[in-house]
Amino acid sequence: MTTRTELNIDIEYYLNKQKNLIDNHLRKLFEASKNYCDPKELWDAVRYSVLSPGKRIRGAFCLATFESIKENGTDDPDFFEDCLTVACSIELIHSMSLIHDDLPSMDNDDLRRGKPSCHKAFSEATAILAGDAMLSLAFFLITETTKKIPQYKKLKIINILSKAFSFGLVPGQIFDLSLSKKNCELKEIENISKLKTAMLIQASVICGAIIANLNDNEKILERLGNFGLKTGIAFQIIDDILDITGDTKTLGKTSGKDKEQNKPTYPLIIGIENSKKMAKDLILQAKSELNNIQIESQLLPLIADYIINRVR
Amino acid sequence: MTTRTELNIDIEYYLNKQKNLIDNHLRKLFEASKNYCDPKELWDAVRYSVLSPGKRIRGAFCLATFESIKENGTDDPDFFEDCLTVACSIELIHSMSLIHDDLPSMDNDDLRRGKPSCHKAFSEATAILAGDAMLSLAFFLITETTKKIPQYKKLKIINILSKAFSFGLVPGQIFDLSLSKKNCELKEIENISKLKTAMLIQASVICGAIIANLNDNEKILERLGNFGLKTGIAFQIIDDILDITGDTKTLGKTSGKDKEQNKPTYPLIIGIENSKKMAKDLILQAKSELNNIQIESQLLPLIADYIINRVR
Repeated sequence: MTTRTELNIDIEYYLNKQKNLIDNHLRKLFEASKNYCDPKELWDAVRYSVLSPGKRIRGAFCLATFESIKENGTDDPDFFEDCLTVACSIELIHSMSLIHDDLPSMDNDDLRRGKPSCHKAFSEATAILAGDAMLSLAFFLITETTKKIPQYKKLKIINILSKAFSFGLVPGQIFDLSLSKKNCELKEIENISKLKTAMLIQASVICGAIIANLNDNEKILERLGNFGLKTGIAFQIIDDILDITGDTKTLGKTSGKDKEQNKPTYPLIIGIENSKKMAKDLILQAKSELNNIQIESQLLPLIADYIINRVR
Repeated sequence: MTTRTELNIDIEYYLNKQKNLIDNHLRKLFEASKNYCDPKELWDAVRYSVLSPGKRIRGAFCLATFESIKENGTDDPDFFEDCLTVACSIELIHSMSLIHDDLPSMDNDDLRRGKPSCHKAFSEATAILAGDAMLSLAFFLITETTKKIPQYKKLKIINILSKAFSFGLVPGQIFDLSLSKKNCELKEIENISKLKTAMLIQASVICGAIIANLNDNEKILERLGNFGLKTGIAFQIIDDILDITGDTKTLGKTSGKDKEQNKPTYPLIIGIENSKKMAKDLILQAKSELNNIQIESQLLPLIADYIINRVR
């Protein structure tokens, strides 16, 4: 499972490798079938959104968790291939949520991942429908394309992802839209980042663990879920900081947008330094969840550290 | 399976009974958990849309197919209860597609099922997000709430419904939006009604059959699928005719809207009488699919006849 060479892992190199694997797998999926041709407008919009350069951090969490704890029996390459499909489903869900968040009736953002957002490049109707198709496609792929994952695990994965979406991402976006800077308290921001960001990262980690974990160890799933949730909130805090300190080109989305829209963020409520400290504390807590299950692989803690190190 | 009393079935009474079962089950589902409380705005919009009076014809097709062919072993009431959950998932998918179709960037319709459409009663953002949550919830319910359906059948049901949505409803709506009356041919309308309407009705029939059919008889599934597809197209033709001949109050949606929006419909392209004839022919063909599998129950042919008899 864990090898000595892991200690020398270059985590940026690792994440970039996983990102390329996910990108290639997505490209293969959307080329594989004539289903994705007609109507051209629809599938072009889907490809435009899901294949545009993203960090793939959610998919990478799924793959890294799988690789960290895979047991004898799930070390078969077919399991990794299946995990890659699930990672693509997760990225489809994340990507469709960005398309809908960017819409004029929501955040009204013209730029996403360095390019015009989907409703700008196509039309508002196409953007809404492309997002719809992608959400359903995420579940379709798990039932259609995976091979080795046992049926009850596929159902568990669909359950976890649909729950994270309907009871996490969507409520999070509703709360986010209704917030105004005045009267906003830290606990409201915490709730939104938990729902909108951390729950899908948590789900990604748990999905990787479900595929890897032959013995259905519930305690491992719970600890890893806590790791994902805490890392996910830290990830959002860092994103908020980067929205202030980063420039539009580096971010690939409009920088300073949160402030312009009067969106309350961690740094606006508690300041940049306190936000950094909060993120660091969360990453420490997240990593301690891993100690409790004695994972020898360094992949997950290294990714957690990488997230916090995006701001220095 | 079939009883002599079936010959006396009052199909309107039967459909109304199924509609009430589905309505009650949906109401129970959304009351069952504190998950459906927060944010209030979101779940109010979901309840507003999915619990508003609809015909529930798709859910009824699922239940009627189940009741028509249930085998020894699936006649346990728990299977019917599971089938009711799947019928609710289907109605959630249908209902979310109506919310998104009604949006200003699509059909821009202010009235739905006799009430202001979702984006009018709430906001555009809430309507989009409520639809998103409902789509994902449809798959969640199948994994979370069903009890007796074997796992591989649950996966098959999720596969069929997600396929019907991503490769049927969504492409159908994109084609529909791009059509203009000039240059529109019958085969284009046929393609749209197949994608947008008939594929979900077909999926509803197949889902009912999958739950009922212990022996996994693929031939039965295929024939029933053909029945559903043809009945579904006929259903759309009749809907188009009613848009011209019905009034807003009876329809529960804006009548004459198709014409006002220059939407090409069957009666506009081939005339009312030819449309009626086409629908009748399709219903005949649909019913002949049932002869081939010798279903003794009269439920499905009676529903098919009921659909055509909505216009006299």
